[in-house]
Amino acid sequence: MRAYFSRRYRLSASHRLHTDTFSEEQNRDIYGKCNNPYGHGHNYTIEVTVGGQVGAETGMVCDLVELDTCVQKNVIERFDHMNLNLDPLFQHQVPTTENLCMEIYELLADFNKAELVRVRIEETSNNSFEYPVSKR
Amino acid sequence: MRAYFSRRYRLSASHRLHTDTFSEEQNRDIYGKCNNPYGHGHNYTIEVTVGGQVGAETGMVCDLVELDTCVQKNVIERFDHMNLNLDPLFQHQVPTTENLCMEIYELLADFNKAELVRVRIEETSNNSFEYPVSKR
Amino acid sequence: MRAYFSRRYRLSASHRLHTDTFSEEQNRDIYGKCNNPYGHGHNYTIEVTVGGQVGAETGMVCDLVELDTCVQKNVIERFDHMNLNLDPLFQHQVPTTENLCMEIYELLADFNKAELVRVRIEETSNNSFEYPVSKR
Amino acid sequence: MRAYFSRRYRLSASHRLHTDTFSEEQNRDIYGKCNNPYGHGHNYTIEVTVGGQVGAETGMVCDLVELDTCVQKNVIERFDHMNLNLDPLFQHQVPTTENLCMEIYELLADFNKAELVRVRIEETSNNSFEYPVSKR
Amino acid sequence: MRAYFSRRYRLSASHRLHTDTFSEEQNRDIYGKCNNPYGHGHNYTIEVTVGGQVGAETGMVCDLVELDTCVQKNVIERFDHMNLNLDPLFQHQVPTTENLCMEIYELLADFNKAELVRVRIEETSNNSFEYPVSKR
Amino acid sequence: MRAYFSRRYRLSASHRLHTDTFSEEQNRDIYGKCNNPYGHGHNYTIEVTVGGQVGAETGMVCDLVELDTCVQKNVIERFDHMNLNLDPLFQHQVPTTENLCMEIYELLADFNKAELVRVRIEETSNNSFEYPVSKR
Repeated sequence: MRAYFSRRYRLSASHRLHTDTFSEEQNRDIYGKCNNPYGHGHNYTIEVTVGGQVGAETGMVCDLVELDTCVQKNVIERFDHMNLNLDPLFQHQVPTTENLCMEIYELLADFNKAELVRVRIEETSNNSFEYPVSKR
Repeated sequence: MRAYFSRRYRLSASHRLHTDTFSEEQNRDIYGKCNNPYGHGHNYTIEVTVGGQVGAETGMVCDLVELDTCVQKNVIERFDHMNLNLDPLFQHQVPTTENLCMEIYELLADFNKAELVRVRIEETSNNSFEYPVSKR
Repeated sequence: MRAYFSRRYRLSASHRLHTDTFSEEQNRDIYGKCNNPYGHGHNYTIEVTVGGQVGAETGMVCDLVELDTCVQKNVIERFDHMNLNLDPLFQHQVPTTENLCMEIYELLADFNKAELVRVRIEETSNNSFEYPVSKR
Repeated sequence: MRAYFSRRYRLSASHRLHTDTFSEEQNRDIYGKCNNPYGHGHNYTIEVTVGGQVGAETGMVCDLVELDTCVQKNVIERFDHMNLNLDPLFQHQVPTTENLCMEIYELLADFNKAELVRVRIEETSNNSFEYPVSKR
Repeated sequence: MRAYFSRRYRLSASHRLHTDTFSEEQNRDIYGKCNNPYGHGHNYTIEVTVGGQVGAETGMVCDLVELDTCVQKNVIERFDHMNLNLDPLFQHQVPTTENLCMEIYELLADFNKAELVRVRIEETSNNSFEYPVSKR
Repeated sequence: MRAYFSRRYRLSASHRLHTDTFSEEQNRDIYGKCNNPYGHGHNYTIEVTVGGQVGAETGMVCDLVELDTCVQKNVIERFDHMNLNLDPLFQHQVPTTENLCMEIYELLADFNKAELVRVRIEETSNNSFEYPVSKR
């Protein structure tokens, strides 16, 4: 009797897409207006999905408070109202939402109350990203 | 040529998370304010996904009216505007949304016009649950 | 230079629509399934709108934290995860969303950092209520 | 390090569900009011999901502009503000959303900057369709 | 103690924006792709707002069932799954959403259980229309 | 026969709330985490409402393309994917969303195809701002 539980968290941050690997012109070509030198920002919605056995007595996949505590400490406090480019994780890679998604997955990897199944980020109402598995 | 069809239904109900297996204090620890003695409520959105061959002539996975009739009779009439704790299904298990999700899946298991793939419940705009888990 | 600021809060509660003023049959006629004897519930979204001069130096209508503190103390702590019928405010009136909307407006009336303009409640994705009515 | 990227596109179109294979009465039975002789319409939201290796240097699954260009040329220009029944693709099959979903998948099959994983269409806020089905 | 109650209804219809008053070229200039000869469609969300005294005993602005019955009979049955251009109301005026909004307001004008305050139509997630305008 | 037309535009930008008028400590007190030195960002939804006579022949309040052109040129090109603090308009005032709302209203004031009624900004799914008049 395994089920999934997904919970959404929200954070606001700024970023600029730019890598020293490429020339100025290549950066503009690849990232378009996201390469604007002064940065821009997003309200990111982070959906964390965990899976596991539904406890026979608790009726729950995992304790909501434990998941919240883990995400708050490892993700929200680190990125909310921050400039992603200044985080050590993005010193050597571009803070695209794909990379943010993978890094958040790694930051939550120690959660051991249920299996971490997927991190999904809605960057805008039109664009979303998932790692490591697709929604289905 | 198989495809999925998902349809959303809405119901409002109240519940209280509490189990006699645990002491009063354990109940408060585990369920927090959801253990409040007088109950509280939710607008649940129930998304039912069915899959199947797209009919060569009808162009449909299944007849929408047949799915609606099945969900209306087995789920909406049973739980809408009700107190979940009073339902026989929740006499011996806690009416968490995980358990509600699994019970709704069972209540729809007889639907035979298409394969029942998944029941997903949005409990609030932040929390959702799915059953069963897909093999990955 | 006056502007409006609206902020949304969420709470889950249960209620039953029933009044001793009417007979059992009248109650069923008027409230339909909302008169179900065991209650049901909703996720209510409470949107509070305040208006005022935008501070020349702060650039704000009012301090968000002060509004949050007021709503949390007077509204969320009182109603979230509760049965509205058991609140003293609903001992002598039915806990319809119209009445809840007016009572929340009164509970916030002491807020003095900006003018309280309107309370709007989304009971479900289809039904919303506002109080007071604007002068037209 | 594979991830998924989903992007939503919107188009408005009209259609009528009717097939010469069935009698007038069968058509009305099967399609209900969707068989109304003069057609009706929808705002379709088309979510296209692609998957692939996240580029070590670009940090992206694929170039957004290339995906947009492909969808614009093959899907939006073809169907937006059109009557689906008049499209050659629907001369010999009913323009149900299941069939539209499968045809859009085929129209995007040549996209070669990332793997085309799934096309999902929201026909209304209650009904959505996906193709192809995942292996389970 | 007056309050507002707003309720949302949904209908799908097709239309073509075109008027014989203008030349073919003027029609294309003014209506753009909405002038496409074969029509297109929308899921319209119709939000009806009524206002009135909150009943001291009922706690309600008006009976939901009576409002639903009125909207169902006068609006939904008339326009849902129809081609707006074929309705007698649009024989001599263009079926723009502005005009649809005003016509729906007129069609509901006989509702006498509460004051009809406003009809608002969401044509797409980006465009909405309201009638009548409030005095400011 | 006057009606309102509202259209939503989206832009992403970063900002930092800070004013030299206050001490470092006062800035932190007033703006909280929005005073974070490196800035953060939002997806802003800008809803522009215009009002006017519905044209007897066109059936429209105003030409959508003309409104789009005006907003694109004066607002989107100026602020999208930018750091608001670097804009000349925010050299001497804090880029709060209240101030952004008022500045966008001024930037659109020359639009003369319909009356500019209101600018409303959704900063996050919980916070919105309006200038100059309330929604009702």
